[in-house]
Amino acid sequence: MIKLTVQLGERSYPILIGSGLIGQPGLLDPYIRGRDVMIVSNDVVAPIYLEPVKRMLAARRVETIVVPDGEARKTMATLEQVLDGLVESRFGRDCTVLSLGGGVIGDLGGFAAAIYQRGVAFLQLPTTLLAQVDSSVGGKTGVNHPGGKNLIGAFHQPRCVLMDTDTLQTLPDRELSAGLAEVVKYGLIMDPAFFAWLENQAGALLQRDPATLHYAIRRSCEAKAEIVAADEREQGRRALLNFGHTFGHAIERCAGYGEWLHGEAIAAGMVMAARFSERLGWLQAVDTARIVKLLERLHLPVRPPRVDPPEFFAAMTMDKKVIAGEIRLVLLKGIGDALVTVDYPAHELLDELRETFMV
Amino acid sequence: MIKLTVQLGERSYPILIGSGLIGQPGLLDPYIRGRDVMIVSNDVVAPIYLEPVKRMLAARRVETIVVPDGEARKTMATLEQVLDGLVESRFGRDCTVLSLGGGVIGDLGGFAAAIYQRGVAFLQLPTTLLAQVDSSVGGKTGVNHPGGKNLIGAFHQPRCVLMDTDTLQTLPDRELSAGLAEVVKYGLIMDPAFFAWLENQAGALLQRDPATLHYAIRRSCEAKAEIVAADEREQGRRALLNFGHTFGHAIERCAGYGEWLHGEAIAAGMVMAARFSERLGWLQAVDTARIVKLLERLHLPVRPPRVDPPEFFAAMTMDKKVIAGEIRLVLLKGIGDALVTVDYPAHELLDELRETFMV
Repeated sequence: MIKLTVQLGERSYPILIGSGLIGQPGLLDPYIRGRDVMIVSNDVVAPIYLEPVKRMLAARRVETIVVPDGEARKTMATLEQVLDGLVESRFGRDCTVLSLGGGVIGDLGGFAAAIYQRGVAFLQLPTTLLAQVDSSVGGKTGVNHPGGKNLIGAFHQPRCVLMDTDTLQTLPDRELSAGLAEVVKYGLIMDPAFFAWLENQAGALLQRDPATLHYAIRRSCEAKAEIVAADEREQGRRALLNFGHTFGHAIERCAGYGEWLHGEAIAAGMVMAARFSERLGWLQAVDTARIVKLLERLHLPVRPPRVDPPEFFAAMTMDKKVIAGEIRLVLLKGIGDALVTVDYPAHELLDELRETFMV
Repeated sequence: MIKLTVQLGERSYPILIGSGLIGQPGLLDPYIRGRDVMIVSNDVVAPIYLEPVKRMLAARRVETIVVPDGEARKTMATLEQVLDGLVESRFGRDCTVLSLGGGVIGDLGGFAAAIYQRGVAFLQLPTTLLAQVDSSVGGKTGVNHPGGKNLIGAFHQPRCVLMDTDTLQTLPDRELSAGLAEVVKYGLIMDPAFFAWLENQAGALLQRDPATLHYAIRRSCEAKAEIVAADEREQGRRALLNFGHTFGHAIERCAGYGEWLHGEAIAAGMVMAARFSERLGWLQAVDTARIVKLLERLHLPVRPPRVDPPEFFAAMTMDKKVIAGEIRLVLLKGIGDALVTVDYPAHELLDELRETFMV
């Protein structure tokens, strides 16, 4: 097991990464507040991991809420179910919410923890690659609104993130690939050597070689922890993590939430961002080609679904990165070199969308 | 106009108190972020003050959500209406939410601002005495749950609180008295001289003498600002502000939300807390009598409604002050001298409730 730390002063917390962690008695004890724990999970993960996690909490009063799997459930209605469960169990301000599952469960449980009694303790046990390398670290929580992804939410840091890499062995292929999209993102925005390593290790990653996956997770979490420590509430540098996301969120929205996995939409969104960077003369065609090739080898989509360009543009403007009507984009100057900008001609973005959707 | 400051480092903000403030052009400009402002108000306040407030925001894009008046509307459903309005107006992360109304509107608008896009700018224009002396200052926001008051919420500080004391001239008598209950509370928990001043000025307050009301508001806000600056997230001293509230919230719950005004429930709750302090030998009977007399002179209830003691006790245990099953109470050692404690025999509380409800 390795232990990384997200450095946030008195709200600093550890990320524990290793094999066989779920079920180890005592491992979570230092991070649980009070005697009451609410486990939030979904109907795919709970049958496998709920009992071993409960064994880790033997001395506590444990209640459970299991919601149906899928992004379509990341709604205010499901949030209210979790809050109702906390009230019905008469949990006080000193309880702990534990999310056991993928990104949806992490965002949902974390948001419930953020607003129940104006904030209670929160633990993350991410069981998908996407949640391990991205959403479980950094304190972003929330639910979707019919008008846009994650439009309702809060910053609420966990007290610990425990990643058992064994959970990836049972993950569906499609979800493994979706998680790798976010791994590729870290290479693209800040680490060209890691991107090159991923090009070399694509086969081993898809074959779920434990050591290779472990390194990919560790390097991703190090990158994310570094950025979050520098800019917790996304006033500046943290926005780099949104590379591919303004395009990707528009894909998810236009396709209907739940049709595309988040990581799939981010993969196609990163290609759109790379092509637009190329159009502006900032990125070389050879680099765009490397990005497309790696994502394709990881079995990820590199094209958005067919959408009318104005509809896609409108969906982009509902993203949270829109400030005073301008769409802030994360674009590339090279592999490993990204920047946040509104400094591009608006018509170029529309032209790019028209060209993309004519293909 | 006087200006107090709530000292919270980079989140410090001013409280502006004065006559004729609503309608003054430019007064709010320094505190508004972006060009988009969502005014949240209710159907009693909006007909009187919406247009003058809009005139203060002439250069901005202003949208409005008006909800029916009353505590019964402080729900997740109304919160969703406000969030839907923000999304439908396509407001971005740089918008400002402005609450124009009493405590319900302040808590509702503030909570929407706390969770829309993970937090946007927030302004308070409290128009009731209760909101001016209590709920608009300190950053507590939230909605009620059928299981308890304010069980869902967040800490989210406003960027400015603007109190136009002229709004009190049109306030219904019952709401004026309800606000005075929280004013009395500051005297009881920390300022015996202020309590004595209130005993002398009860008549002038009920007659709405502007200078007397102005001083009562100023002194209340000074007290609250001092406590909030010392303990923003209620880890310690801030809990003193809950004097009368554990009993009061149980009254509101047992009576059905909206039947008792919050300040009315707090008045009867403060008397219950004083009597229990007396039972424990901490407070003298003469002091309880002074409290009852002042509240009665201010036309406030000093008895809870008829409830079965076990039902009342159960309602008290749903309050947020319950930690690990123990009911933390704020009790009095004298007028102006309060403490937070769990250090009392549980059976004494039950005996006190039995006695109270036998009368």
